Amino acid sequence: MRVLAVDLGGSHAACALVEDNTILFRETLCFANSEKLVPVLPSVEDALRRLMSQSSYPIAGIAFGFCGLVDSRRNFVASTNGKYIDAPDLDLAAWAEQKLGLRLRLENDARLALRGECYAGAAQGETNVVMFTLGTGIGGVVMIEGRPLRGKHGQAGALGGHVPVRLNGRACTCGAIGCAESEASGWALPIVSKEWPDFATSMLASVPLNFENLFSCAAQGDLVAQQVREHCLQVWAMTAVSAIHSFDPEVLLYGGGVMKSADVILPYIEDYVHRHAWTAWGKVQVRAAQLGNDAALLGAIPLLNEELENVR
Amino acid sequence: MRVLAVDLGGSHAACALVEDNTILFRETLCFANSEKLVPVLPSVEDALRRLMSQSSYPIAGIAFGFCGLVDSRRNFVASTNGKYIDAPDLDLAAWAEQKLGLRLRLENDARLALRGECYAGAAQGETNVVMFTLGTGIGGVVMIEGRPLRGKHGQAGALGGHVPVRLNGRACTCGAIGCAESEASGWALPIVSKEWPDFATSMLASVPLNFENLFSCAAQGDLVAQQVREHCLQVWAMTAVSAIHSFDPEVLLYGGGVMKSADVILPYIEDYVHRHAWTAWGKVQVRAAQLGNDAALLGAIPLLNEELENVR
Repeated sequence: MRVLAVDLGGSHAACALVEDNTILFRETLCFANSEKLVPVLPSVEDALRRLMSQSSYPIAGIAFGFCGLVDSRRNFVASTNGKYIDAPDLDLAAWAEQKLGLRLRLENDARLALRGECYAGAAQGETNVVMFTLGTGIGGVVMIEGRPLRGKHGQAGALGGHVPVRLNGRACTCGAIGCAESEASGWALPIVSKEWPDFATSMLASVPLNFENLFSCAAQGDLVAQQVREHCLQVWAMTAVSAIHSFDPEVLLYGGGVMKSADVILPYIEDYVHRHAWTAWGKVQVRAAQLGNDAALLGAIPLLNEELENVR
Repeated sequence: MRVLAVDLGGSHAACALVEDNTILFRETLCFANSEKLVPVLPSVEDALRRLMSQSSYPIAGIAFGFCGLVDSRRNFVASTNGKYIDAPDLDLAAWAEQKLGLRLRLENDARLALRGECYAGAAQGETNVVMFTLGTGIGGVVMIEGRPLRGKHGQAGALGGHVPVRLNGRACTCGAIGCAESEASGWALPIVSKEWPDFATSMLASVPLNFENLFSCAAQGDLVAQQVREHCLQVWAMTAVSAIHSFDPEVLLYGGGVMKSADVILPYIEDYVHRHAWTAWGKVQVRAAQLGNDAALLGAIPLLNEELENVR
């Protein structure tokens, strides 16, 4: 089966011709941070045309990953977070039919990435998976019994970083208090670090406050860095237990930029959940995601294969 | 439609003849804390026979609510928590067919109660609901798009009280740390209160430590009681935000003994979630459950109507 895949991020789109679990050809488009989606669509269309011309076999459809909440039932964007504000009003399926003569299925980009990991990556053959993306924010996605959890407004399982884990914690950008994201994400790290006792005496005071430097300073024996690292690891591990108790997965997958320190993070989380998660049936596995930026593109085939009646 | 319903708790079973949203007849059986289910089944059978004899109309089946994890796909008990330890090995559907000539569907008692509330109680017409039971423990159940969330091992959405909300919190009986249940449940209240600063000076020091006394002492102006009450309210409200972010409900339902103080608890939680939950689509409603101990019995009709292929 050959399909086209689009993974639309805030400032770029990856377009690909995909056959089963292989990306045959790809094009990456960069946008000058377009506020709207309409001005971007012609270049996506051109890229998809060029990819189609590479294939002498018929194309079964287009899987379109979008960086916002998607209503899969209606096949429309449900809401966006400041990016592509015109997207909820666009009928992308009609656009694809009209311009390229192909059916189009829309999905949230993180859900599409998890499908990719289940189809061709670190969770092959798994049907009960929670994936976290640790980066500037903390993303989450849930698959239960082989189907992505979505909920009525597309939010279910999608707010992995916005589960409160700290009574009387910091205010989060989402409006809640003490979220994992406000305690241990890329954007929160400078805030958390600077408030830490003895921060001024730490190596952290003289480097840019990102996770690469945090793990590096901690490895060099800096005490404050070690304490902040422990704090972050604990928040991620608590969030893992929370997800296990909420969604009953057999596998936890971790992706995102912070996974450069996977050698420290994954064993910590694994040890914590094996000691503290309530899973009478056995042990949850903790794994690194494998596909990186290809994950959403490789989710194209399972998305297009999904029967619409299974959508929830 | 007429059906039989069984709601099996640790020390009693409620059996009923149910027509649509009405309990026509009921019998309550008390057991001397039987460790096993087999010795209890004959008296359940007798009660069901007596109820059947009350009906001149045909009976469509038996809905059996069980106080433990249930594998709805296999229609078997998945695991129990020390009670009825022989239940996972019993084929209750075969028992019902053989003894009474009726089909039987098995469900976790809390999930059955939520179905009852959606069918005939406080969440009629609602399809996206999270229900919490605040009592000795904290129970949780989730319905998404009209279907109970179950997960592979029947745990999904079922561990509402075991979502960690307190970094460096207390050890919970479930093995996790800082669970809502270990911070604000009936069993945790004495521990939390006795550790509170100035506990010895409080009215709480001279009364049994339960929620009735906590709310009463707080209402009489006792400062420590007010602080502990605020702590519990905050834990319940955080757990509500966590559930909203995880499961995307439109309604939160609260039941259980602690709801005697619903006049304080529900407005607090409602105000908190309206200020702190991320729900771009609108506002989550916070309601008291209505059916009390009848909820599971009134879940019988929707359970038996559920098509097996929808079970997840």
